[in-house]
Amino acid sequence: MRQVVMTKPGDVVVEDRDDPTILEPTDAIIRVTATCICGSDLWPYRGVQDVDHQVMGHEYVGVVQDVGPDVRTVKVGDFVVGSFWATDNTCEICRAGYQSHCVHRTIMGSIGTQAEFARVPLADGTLVATPGQPDANLVPSLLAASDVLGTGWFAAVAAEAGPGKTVAVVGDGAVGLLGVLAASRLGADRIIVSSRHADRQALAREFGATDIIEERGDAGAQRVREMTGGLGAHSVIEAVGTQEAMMQAIHSARSGGHVGFVGVSHDVSIPGSLLFSTGVHLHGGPAPVRRFLPELLARIWDRTINPGKVFDVTLPLDRAAEGYEAMDQRRAIKVLLTPERDR
Amino acid sequence: MRQVVMTKPGDVVVEDRDDPTILEPTDAIIRVTATCICGSDLWPYRGVQDVDHQVMGHEYVGVVQDVGPDVRTVKVGDFVVGSFWATDNTCEICRAGYQSHCVHRTIMGSIGTQAEFARVPLADGTLVATPGQPDANLVPSLLAASDVLGTGWFAAVAAEAGPGKTVAVVGDGAVGLLGVLAASRLGADRIIVSSRHADRQALAREFGATDIIEERGDAGAQRVREMTGGLGAHSVIEAVGTQEAMMQAIHSARSGGHVGFVGVSHDVSIPGSLLFSTGVHLHGGPAPVRRFLPELLARIWDRTINPGKVFDVTLPLDRAAEGYEAMDQRRAIKVLLTPERDR
Repeated sequence: MRQVVMTKPGDVVVEDRDDPTILEPTDAIIRVTATCICGSDLWPYRGVQDVDHQVMGHEYVGVVQDVGPDVRTVKVGDFVVGSFWATDNTCEICRAGYQSHCVHRTIMGSIGTQAEFARVPLADGTLVATPGQPDANLVPSLLAASDVLGTGWFAAVAAEAGPGKTVAVVGDGAVGLLGVLAASRLGADRIIVSSRHADRQALAREFGATDIIEERGDAGAQRVREMTGGLGAHSVIEAVGTQEAMMQAIHSARSGGHVGFVGVSHDVSIPGSLLFSTGVHLHGGPAPVRRFLPELLARIWDRTINPGKVFDVTLPLDRAAEGYEAMDQRRAIKVLLTPERDR
Repeated sequence: MRQVVMTKPGDVVVEDRDDPTILEPTDAIIRVTATCICGSDLWPYRGVQDVDHQVMGHEYVGVVQDVGPDVRTVKVGDFVVGSFWATDNTCEICRAGYQSHCVHRTIMGSIGTQAEFARVPLADGTLVATPGQPDANLVPSLLAASDVLGTGWFAAVAAEAGPGKTVAVVGDGAVGLLGVLAASRLGADRIIVSSRHADRQALAREFGATDIIEERGDAGAQRVREMTGGLGAHSVIEAVGTQEAMMQAIHSARSGGHVGFVGVSHDVSIPGSLLFSTGVHLHGGPAPVRRFLPELLARIWDRTINPGKVFDVTLPLDRAAEGYEAMDQRRAIKVLLTPERDR
């Protein structure tokens, strides 16, 4: 099969690899209908994180081709969506809603879903089947549920976005934008987004943003405070992962408010005295997407949300390198890759 | 009147000062029945924090001597307990339960309650009157509600201690011990306390601790994980304020668990990558004691809790210096001071 490999920072190729096979009785093999490039894939692409001939991709939707003998909840032919973590969904941590920290988890990025096929460990715990085969125009939204929507949703939940709340969003990438969508659907009164890009501003408004600010960093936090009677936002979503973004997020929140952070932290250090003096709640990490998948798939299937709009570029898998380049240069918000060639 | 002053690190004296008077129409003047020395008073005593002829003390119970013309909820003769923050209890932040971040707050430590009298700003928002004049043996517990009990209670609430939960407590000072009491009364199943002092271990058990461990730091966290099937505690109370204690707390918590921290942070720095990878909730800061005061006073008045047991030394105000020395040397858990001379 064809599979995306990052040989070194900045170099993405598509190689021929063996098709995956069932290794454990709980595995499923899926034919990948659609996959995509994540903002987190840019960390190694930019050399911030080490990389050496790494298979890439952890987001996926597809059709089940084969299942191990212990798989009970999905069957060959099902159209499925799974989280970027393969998880049992039965351990104590999973049952508490933290599947991304499952005691038996496997990160799908180590398997690589930017490929024609993928092995999904712990298929019963990881995959959710849709009610039927989706229309083609639903596929991008279903794919978004695999990570970027689930991550934005978790950020909004971690930030306790809801009725009566003002929500500030730091980061106008796909996760930040879908954090806006989540906050809106969770009932937030007001959603303030920090963005300087006209296309992202437009999508933010479409997803439910009520206010756009161009300031960032300390000035961004200051602006949010001015807009909230000097108090700060009740809820803040941090969807970048840098020190500046985390500080903007904490300083944007009111005392007793909630910061939900999902940007993968890179060299972020939080002064204890700042957390103490501000009294904000801080919670985040890799999103337990599996917690939200049934609800998100239902909303997508009913066409009440359209998160697939974050994909503004679609390319065949063989042109993955162009997709990485477009995202690196911020010419694309998020790139969808289609591995299927002969259908 | 007589008032405690810290002239410089390690030097505590009692000076004659003018009696306080009503400055604002919302002020009350109280005759201080009992006050005490806080663990946080040891930071300047030990020279970790600057100090120069600072009036001391922020915990207090007493009898109202005078009120400003705008005071409505307490009257002359009432026995009152107040938080260590004077707060309006009406602003948006107070109404959300974060009175310690009130937009009009004054820290009582700037007024100094280790004195015969004290001015309490925003008396209506700050003070809660007891149902009547308390028996003398209730006074220590009522005094504890002013800070140390309220702070331990907030830590347990921030850590989401409750039924079905295992709670780990880092710090065996008065706040940590009262965090144990709070976790127990909030219904926690299991309470693990890190302590090496026999007297503190005994009080922890009396307050509801089910397990005592002697390990601290990384070894303490490792021990808690071993005791919880490798997962970590659901809830962790951090009641010290050092880097080691914060790391012990975070590493003691399970993924998705809650750390409530109330130790005043000194040179604490939390790696974003640790918070991201562990997925713990982190919340703390100066406790909004006022949120809990009515409930705590009711429990004390009914004698269902006896937090005053943390006071193992009682001294007249004039011997405050001995009290500081005893706490600094950890010969006393917490020292109660009695300002009244002729009763």
